[in-house]
Amino acid sequence: MTTKWVYGFSAKNTEGNRGMKPLLGGKGANLAEMSSLGLPVPPGFTVTTEACLDYEKSGKAINDDIKGQVEKALSEVESVTGKKFGDNKNPLLFSVRSGAQVSMPGMMDTVLNLGMNDDSVEGMAKLTGNERFAWDSYRRFIQMYANVVMGFNISLLEHTLEDLKEAREAKEDTELSAEDWKDLVKVYKQIILEETGKSFPQDPMDQLWQAIAAVFGSWNNPRAIKYREINGIPHNWGTAVNVQSMVFGNMGDDSGTGVCFTRDPSTGEKVFFGEYLMNAQGEDVVAGIRTPAPINDFSKNESNNALKTLEEVQKSSYDTLVEIYQKLEAHYKDMQDIEFTIERGELFILQTRNGKRTAAAAVKIAADLVKENILDKKEALLRVNPEDLNQLLHPRLDPNAEKIILTTGLPASPGAATGTICFNSEAAAQRAESGEAVILVRQETSPEDIGGMVASKGILTARGGMTSHAAVVARGMGKPCVAGCSDLTINYANGEMKVGTKVFKDGDPLTIDGGTGEVMEGTVPTIAAEISSEFASFMKWADEYRKLGVRTNADNPEDSEVAVNFGAEGIGLCRTEHMFFAPERILAVREMIFSQNQEDREKALEKLLPYQREDFLGIFKVMDGKPVNIRLLDPPLHEFLPHEKDEKLELAEYLKIDLDEVEARSEKLQEFNPMLGHRGCRLAVTYPEIYKMQVRAIMEAAIEAQKAGVKVYPEIMIPLVGLADELSILRKDAEEVIKTVFCEKSTEVKHKIGTMIELPRAAITAGEIAHHADFFSFGTNDLTQTTFGLSRDDSGKFLPSYVKQGLMKVDPFVALDQSGVGFLVEHAVREGKKTKTDIHMGICGEHGGEPSSVEFCHRSGLDYVSCSPFRVPIARLAAAQAAVRES
Amino acid sequence: MTTKWVYGFSAKNTEGNRGMKPLLGGKGANLAEMSSLGLPVPPGFTVTTEACLDYEKSGKAINDDIKGQVEKALSEVESVTGKKFGDNKNPLLFSVRSGAQVSMPGMMDTVLNLGMNDDSVEGMAKLTGNERFAWDSYRRFIQMYANVVMGFNISLLEHTLEDLKEAREAKEDTELSAEDWKDLVKVYKQIILEETGKSFPQDPMDQLWQAIAAVFGSWNNPRAIKYREINGIPHNWGTAVNVQSMVFGNMGDDSGTGVCFTRDPSTGEKVFFGEYLMNAQGEDVVAGIRTPAPINDFSKNESNNALKTLEEVQKSSYDTLVEIYQKLEAHYKDMQDIEFTIERGELFILQTRNGKRTAAAAVKIAADLVKENILDKKEALLRVNPEDLNQLLHPRLDPNAEKIILTTGLPASPGAATGTICFNSEAAAQRAESGEAVILVRQETSPEDIGGMVASKGILTARGGMTSHAAVVARGMGKPCVAGCSDLTINYANGEMKVGTKVFKDGDPLTIDGGTGEVMEGTVPTIAAEISSEFASFMKWADEYRKLGVRTNADNPEDSEVAVNFGAEGIGLCRTEHMFFAPERILAVREMIFSQNQEDREKALEKLLPYQREDFLGIFKVMDGKPVNIRLLDPPLHEFLPHEKDEKLELAEYLKIDLDEVEARSEKLQEFNPMLGHRGCRLAVTYPEIYKMQVRAIMEAAIEAQKAGVKVYPEIMIPLVGLADELSILRKDAEEVIKTVFCEKSTEVKHKIGTMIELPRAAITAGEIAHHADFFSFGTNDLTQTTFGLSRDDSGKFLPSYVKQGLMKVDPFVALDQSGVGFLVEHAVREGKKTKTDIHMGICGEHGGEPSSVEFCHRSGLDYVSCSPFRVPIARLAAAQAAVRES
Repeated sequence: MTTKWVYGFSAKNTEGNRGMKPLLGGKGANLAEMSSLGLPVPPGFTVTTEACLDYEKSGKAINDDIKGQVEKALSEVESVTGKKFGDNKNPLLFSVRSGAQVSMPGMMDTVLNLGMNDDSVEGMAKLTGNERFAWDSYRRFIQMYANVVMGFNISLLEHTLEDLKEAREAKEDTELSAEDWKDLVKVYKQIILEETGKSFPQDPMDQLWQAIAAVFGSWNNPRAIKYREINGIPHNWGTAVNVQSMVFGNMGDDSGTGVCFTRDPSTGEKVFFGEYLMNAQGEDVVAGIRTPAPINDFSKNESNNALKTLEEVQKSSYDTLVEIYQKLEAHYKDMQDIEFTIERGELFILQTRNGKRTAAAAVKIAADLVKENILDKKEALLRVNPEDLNQLLHPRLDPNAEKIILTTGLPASPGAATGTICFNSEAAAQRAESGEAVILVRQETSPEDIGGMVASKGILTARGGMTSHAAVVARGMGKPCVAGCSDLTINYANGEMKVGTKVFKDGDPLTIDGGTGEVMEGTVPTIAAEISSEFASFMKWADEYRKLGVRTNADNPEDSEVAVNFGAEGIGLCRTEHMFFAPERILAVREMIFSQNQEDREKALEKLLPYQREDFLGIFKVMDGKPVNIRLLDPPLHEFLPHEKDEKLELAEYLKIDLDEVEARSEKLQEFNPMLGHRGCRLAVTYPEIYKMQVRAIMEAAIEAQKAGVKVYPEIMIPLVGLADELSILRKDAEEVIKTVFCEKSTEVKHKIGTMIELPRAAITAGEIAHHADFFSFGTNDLTQTTFGLSRDDSGKFLPSYVKQGLMKVDPFVALDQSGVGFLVEHAVREGKKTKTDIHMGICGEHGGEPSSVEFCHRSGLDYVSCSPFRVPIARLAAAQAAVRES
Repeated sequence: MTTKWVYGFSAKNTEGNRGMKPLLGGKGANLAEMSSLGLPVPPGFTVTTEACLDYEKSGKAINDDIKGQVEKALSEVESVTGKKFGDNKNPLLFSVRSGAQVSMPGMMDTVLNLGMNDDSVEGMAKLTGNERFAWDSYRRFIQMYANVVMGFNISLLEHTLEDLKEAREAKEDTELSAEDWKDLVKVYKQIILEETGKSFPQDPMDQLWQAIAAVFGSWNNPRAIKYREINGIPHNWGTAVNVQSMVFGNMGDDSGTGVCFTRDPSTGEKVFFGEYLMNAQGEDVVAGIRTPAPINDFSKNESNNALKTLEEVQKSSYDTLVEIYQKLEAHYKDMQDIEFTIERGELFILQTRNGKRTAAAAVKIAADLVKENILDKKEALLRVNPEDLNQLLHPRLDPNAEKIILTTGLPASPGAATGTICFNSEAAAQRAESGEAVILVRQETSPEDIGGMVASKGILTARGGMTSHAAVVARGMGKPCVAGCSDLTINYANGEMKVGTKVFKDGDPLTIDGGTGEVMEGTVPTIAAEISSEFASFMKWADEYRKLGVRTNADNPEDSEVAVNFGAEGIGLCRTEHMFFAPERILAVREMIFSQNQEDREKALEKLLPYQREDFLGIFKVMDGKPVNIRLLDPPLHEFLPHEKDEKLELAEYLKIDLDEVEARSEKLQEFNPMLGHRGCRLAVTYPEIYKMQVRAIMEAAIEAQKAGVKVYPEIMIPLVGLADELSILRKDAEEVIKTVFCEKSTEVKHKIGTMIELPRAAITAGEIAHHADFFSFGTNDLTQTTFGLSRDDSGKFLPSYVKQGLMKVDPFVALDQSGVGFLVEHAVREGKKTKTDIHMGICGEHGGEPSSVEFCHRSGLDYVSCSPFRVPIARLAAAQAAVRES
């Protein structure tokens, strides 16, 4: 059997279809599909990706077999079009384009008008009666061919064109005459001869072979190799070549070109929507030199409503277009973005693809397509990118507003915010109280800044990564944040920051976009998020299909309420450390830290107990009927110590010791690597009374809530376990306290005790740990840090360089690293279940709200994911998609 | 079949042997063994560990079956000894002792003289004609029984004895008369009756049952449970009870007791060696009230040479003892530590065990036993604890010197050192130059302190763990170091340190013992290490049997030479960062760090190139014919920045920038968690020119060495790889440089390029990484830190508390954590070999010199271990033992 290297597409005979992307490339498969549907696609043929591989293998030669099949396909196109390739009177011209299995933009440019030469240009001029058009087409072809096929540096040609325009005092190309173009072609050919030593090829077949070879060769140009490495595309796929007959929208006033959407891409409304230009080519619509006209009345807006619609100008083409768009949408079952060209009153379709759209439109379209019985719910769920739901939930910049971008940091928490710069959290809180919109700008934030963060409209930091304190807390609050903006030099003392040479003072207006990481000068107007009515029903479908539970990470009643409104089914991570910073508590916390013995420590903890009880009670009430997973104290104690002198003095006075002593003891608590230091359950191993107080507070609050008719399901989570014995000992401690409280209150509360799996050793020995745990919660933030040996707060300095070099497809703190960290998660799930089949498992790292990670969690057999409140809908949709894809 | 609960031992009939330790306990098995050998062991019987478990299961009752077997065994002892238990004239008395499978010292005390009562004491007095002996024995029995069996607080009894001695104006017990003891017995019994409400038991069988029950019960006393938890002994083993007939060394001048060694435990010399006392019990020899006499002329020394030897005093017993010791040594094939008692001219053996000995003696004994054909080489190799070789290689404290221990830190690098306190590395270097012996005392050390560390006799730090900078570097240098001594408060400004209330000034004398962690006031004399001639041949045997290669971690020619002399077969880890700190280089290093672009960085690196080349050349020459594995730059760049103001000023001047600028840029380089920061290969991903310079220096040095006739096998190691692509890119960079150097020099050098596996992700994805690596070197220090999420420099604060609570059997930075970190090592070995069967693998963490870790490496299939020079012999022996044990 001989290999089939070439697949033709035309109204008469089409050999491919949209399922053949590996062989025909995306573009080729799609052209074949449309041809088969009987749509007016200019005929042509596709040379397969296998031919590309053969070309490489044969030492960059197109074998005779391929050549034969190309020639045959070409003659079929000639017979369908009634034109001849290389004919001098009515020449068949081609576009030649690359087309790989997946889109690789920028890999290779297009060659249009292939087949023209010194003779046929004259024939075309005669045929169209438009000499200027013919010569303009020819000089464009020479320019593209020289660049793309001959690898010629076209700046030489472009300079000549510029010189000519200057001589003619012409501003635009359109002001040049047919004669001018004719002269230019002469000069072009001369330059090419001088520079390359070869004449510009006049034989159309010769042009075609060289163009096909150039496309094949482009698969292995350095740019394409780099692109594939970055995007993880295999090098052995190859590219196809699409050779398609030319149609011209610029052949006169009965010709034209346009782009249309089958629904409104901004709102999703079911209206046919588009723009066009008569006597123009595709580039002209995009270039914005002329204002495009609306295709119909729906498409009119302020800037184009004076112009005639396509419906008015050429009703027949418009009607055909309507017929086609309906056919395409029904066929592809999705909103289409269609490119068309009209040549002398005849409509051609050049491309169709699923149209880009806003998140609101995506949801509405998916919902409508279900109502229209075009999609079922499962299919509809797959049509919305979960990440895009972000747009629906946060305020954003007015897209029409002008903006001066100063610099870009990490897009740490989406949404746009505008306000005045404030470098100090206390000041931020005060100024916010008096009604000022404030942007908090810090070197980095720490738990002490919580008050300032709550008060400000947005947060900007110079240091820290996607999961730095600022980023995590801001996402929890649903507050815009740009983090790790290393171009920023902040000088607290002078109350100013520098970006390059620009200096901004405290109080200067600033705007940030936490979705893009952009930092902008002055005030850029923002618009509030609008949530469509379709959103709720769409999310309900997601809930029908998903198998993963979705919880939220929330530390207070307010965040919990937001999350419940977004559909959270419980709290997966309630951090207790943020609760320690309120002014009335922090002194007791510091007293506890500075205690020299257990008795003093217990005395200080006694003071904290009522506050903690109140904290938990508030959360239990909001979460009525839903589980609340509370992590016991996690950070190293030195995080709670004062930094400023007046605070230190206050503490010295309170503890009745010297300032020197405060400083000496603080110094002793410092650590080289706090992330790997005396924190988590290690605190409780050395000071068991800390966790005992917290467990008591949880249980007393739970009993109080229960007595008030609230349904409580507390889960006590012990962090940073690395040894089964740690959990065993601390669980025993907790159980003793619980028993005592139950006795005291003469009542009981259903509860669980478990652990975070956030250290590689915990994952490895999960089978042992499971003996002492009712649940595992994967703390993938810390697990990622330890598995990679990568501090999230320090990685901002070098991770961008990794991403740029293609060393990391994506920040592992954003999307879970499935082959590294994921290996440990899967191992722990497997070993944990071996020990205890019904052990409950979830994830509470930031990954719990990231779609690819959610899908991983689904596959790994976890019971739930937990994420920040504003990501709950994203997680719900991602979980549904994972379930649908699996089934 | 009925269970056998009791095993008798006597000259007539012995039912156990030394293989039955699980059932009879160590002591019981040994007594049986000696009885079988026909040695004069006082007859008795052992109640099994199974009986102990049954006792617990039966609600703390001895079942009738057991009772019956005890009674039967007892009557056999009666028949052998011709005495009756409970007889009033010639009573059979017993010692009752616990005895678990492994020794658990302090778990339960012994009860001697069991069977005495108000009647038999009279009989004994008559029988021995020694009333004082009889009543003293009775009051001792009451005291022990009350304490051990009745759980009575014996301080009450002891006070009475004190009062009595005061009344008699007696200083020693020996000054009391028979009447005194008689009175005391009366008072004792009275007190017991008052305090417990019960009379002291007079029925010997009753005494026996209660004593057996007490021993069984002691298995589950809190002290024993804690001991088992800490030492990893299963709770379900139980303890045996040994009931053995009493013999008395204090029955007169023809009785006595003693201890002897079959060889000299200090030197290993083959001489019979021991001490004895006539008319005394075992305790008296130990208590040191009377000076023990030498058993023979060999055993004479300055303090005892006036005393008569046993050989002279009682030749027959001595001759029997000689016969017995020879039998025992031949039987146990090891030097024995034997306890004997002579009762009225008759010799009894009470215990034999392998004798404790110095490392020098251990080596000599093992070597001699091979020469004597008692052991083969394999057995001999197992007889020396590898860790003990440490003693042979480092100076140690004079064991006879007095010492005032101030506090104890971590025993970070063995050996003792004495000198004057110095808080500053530069000053230490200066003072050392003028001949002063200096102890460098630092909060912690950093690479900047290298000069001071080299110059000082020992190093003491207040912070940092077993693998802190100070510890690792000190071990490399073979220099004593006590690290993480948290009781120390150092005040650099005042030039003083505090330990509790004691203040020490710069220049005060101090002594440290890096083998125990002790810090001592003033000057304690030390003695130099002596290496025996047997050592070399013993180590040769180790080399015959071991399969693992042993390399060393060395950064300079001096250390390399030490290691080669200790038998190192190559360098497994040559760190390049220490080389950067020499005064003439550090400015260029800082210039490189502060460079704003690649060009400036390359200029600064250019200056460093010749130095690095010299460094490597020196090492290659020493290591002629052996592989040298060089790790490219690893630490974060901020480690090289100046801390002191004058250094900062110097740098500012050198770089022609402001001091402010120096500080601002230094500040920008700081990291939250440097351990997880911008270091290792991450430096080279952002600044490829650094590694390129180092690779060039290595290869230029290798070629120069090769031209000089030196055999060089350089291995280039890229640290901190977490992604296969990191290694792939950096390997490509290195290969390009190598190719260029080969071209320039028109010659080639055989070399390898590989990576450290020191991050969990690297271990997990080792299969991918192996594609780009000629070798793996497991960096188990960092792998332990990341797997546990535990900073070695910070763990000093809480790890001791873990060890104390039995949460960690051993510091994981000392012995490799086989179930956690080991899992990753084994996984990486397996996956690495799947990809590349001949990939070369070793370990270069500190664990490479720790025996249990070396055995793990052997089992895991590694090719070599690498450790600090002074641990090379330990690793060689441990590797040999692993191989022998496996075979």
